Amino acid sequence: MAFDPSSLKYDDKGLIPAIAQDHATGEVLMMAWMNAESLQRTIKTGRVTYWSRSRQSFWAKGESSGHVQRLIELRIDCDRDCLLLLVDQTGPACHTMRRSCFYTALRDGAEVVIADPIA
Amino acid sequence: MAFDPSSLKYDDKGLIPAIAQDHATGEVLMMAWMNAESLQRTIKTGRVTYWSRSRQSFWAKGESSGHVQRLIELRIDCDRDCLLLLVDQTGPACHTMRRSCFYTALRDGAEVVIADPIA
Repeated sequence: MAFDPSSLKYDDKGLIPAIAQDHATGEVLMMAWMNAESLQRTIKTGRVTYWSRSRQSFWAKGESSGHVQRLIELRIDCDRDCLLLLVDQTGPACHTMRRSCFYTALRDGAEVVIADPIA
Repeated sequence: MAFDPSSLKYDDKGLIPAIAQDHATGEVLMMAWMNAESLQRTIKTGRVTYWSRSRQSFWAKGESSGHVQRLIELRIDCDRDCLLLLVDQTGPACHTMRRSCFYTALRDGAEVVIADPIA
């Protein structure tokens, strides 16, 4: 079936959550949001482009930092309301310069930082 | 720092997205939503409990199907507005009986089903 971005289910703001996963290691790097146009740009360019809710603008990941995400494969969930992006991540995915945004774990009832900045 | 669920950022419906990842293989299984109370139940019981947006009720994963998710570790992202759940998944995570909900891939411009039901 040919892919039609408008066939996905977007929320009341026209957005769909997109999970970025390292294609090689399986590490979950981050979650951000896309609208139909940012998804189109991602597919067309092979560079992951989100929609920034805080800035209300397209967010070509790594545009200013150089920490780009190259799309390896796009996957769609059963309800068509969430995306999984298998990516080739240059450097850190997180703005804190950690590889993943999920660097805080709950252990024995307390928050623990489990990863250091890599750049 | 002791964990306080109310310190997380919930959306205007009081929900936060939660990504479930197989703790052993790294496979991303599904994404669903939690509110503060479902997160509390998840931590307290060790059984992952979401908030069903369609049914507007708590959704103790596997309650009817037996395909439970045991919480191995909870992780929080840098913005405190997304959760990553490392889980021990019994059987399929998806209601289509596939291990993961992300069984549709975009390849050469077309949607391809890349996984079969396992149960």
